[in-house]
Amino acid sequence: MTDLEIRPATHADIPAIVQMLADDPLGAQRESLDDLTPYTAAFERLASDPHNHIVVAVREGRVVGTLQLTIIPGLSRRGATRSIIEGVRVHADERGSGLGTQLIEWAIEESRRLQCRLVQLTSDASRTDARRFYERLGFEASHVGFKMAL
Amino acid sequence: MTDLEIRPATHADIPAIVQMLADDPLGAQRESLDDLTPYTAAFERLASDPHNHIVVAVREGRVVGTLQLTIIPGLSRRGATRSIIEGVRVHADERGSGLGTQLIEWAIEESRRLQCRLVQLTSDASRTDARRFYERLGFEASHVGFKMAL
Repeated sequence: MTDLEIRPATHADIPAIVQMLADDPLGAQRESLDDLTPYTAAFERLASDPHNHIVVAVREGRVVGTLQLTIIPGLSRRGATRSIIEGVRVHADERGSGLGTQLIEWAIEESRRLQCRLVQLTSDASRTDARRFYERLGFEASHVGFKMAL
Repeated sequence: MTDLEIRPATHADIPAIVQMLADDPLGAQRESLDDLTPYTAAFERLASDPHNHIVVAVREGRVVGTLQLTIIPGLSRRGATRSIIEGVRVHADERGSGLGTQLIEWAIEESRRLQCRLVQLTSDASRTDARRFYERLGFEASHVGFKMAL
């Protein structure tokens, strides 16, 4: 495998990110590639928020992975700041290449650098491979994740 | 029960919030009431972040509940903004009073007002009553929550 770069996403990366979000059993039902307007508006909100970091993994000039890292201050655990990982996606061509691991390791390192004392994420219970993947990286499947659509 | 007010927390509420965080089977191991300095510093970080809202529930001038609501923009789900509820606590004297429900309903309403399309939270799997509580409020226990201490 050639070198991989993980860098902040730019406007120009939006189509590639949305394609990866949609190329997924759950994402296919939720995303829409016809109109990028809502994604562009959301990207503006992300870009203007210093506590949110959306990155892309690039190999040979091609976007092959993405994730979002959010830094959240808090009072619990003696005032611990935590980070939340969302929207992890690896391009179909790169699955099994270790890129998912590289992306999550990047997020853990970045969380450490930003003085987080906890990293967390949720994964849909239907993603049966995810549990092994995250446990191998050192996460503990200690919580139940609840969601409600509004 | 007399009237309840849910309002943004102030500096003066920090000791009451920390006491509630600590008065909990999990919190007792994680919090420290001896020195409020780390909590005060964390409160400053929270107060300066427009996407984080820490509130207290007050009855007869007494702080009896708290939660933190974080608003997170994102690209997935057609650029949906989501909210995350953390640090939900109800004073021991108020358990069973419906205050937990009132706090979560406040968070859901506030999320709607702030145009979130999803509300989410995680609960430690050892909190066996939580699942029924959140499902009754309309949440779906669809996810596994992973955490890693740094």
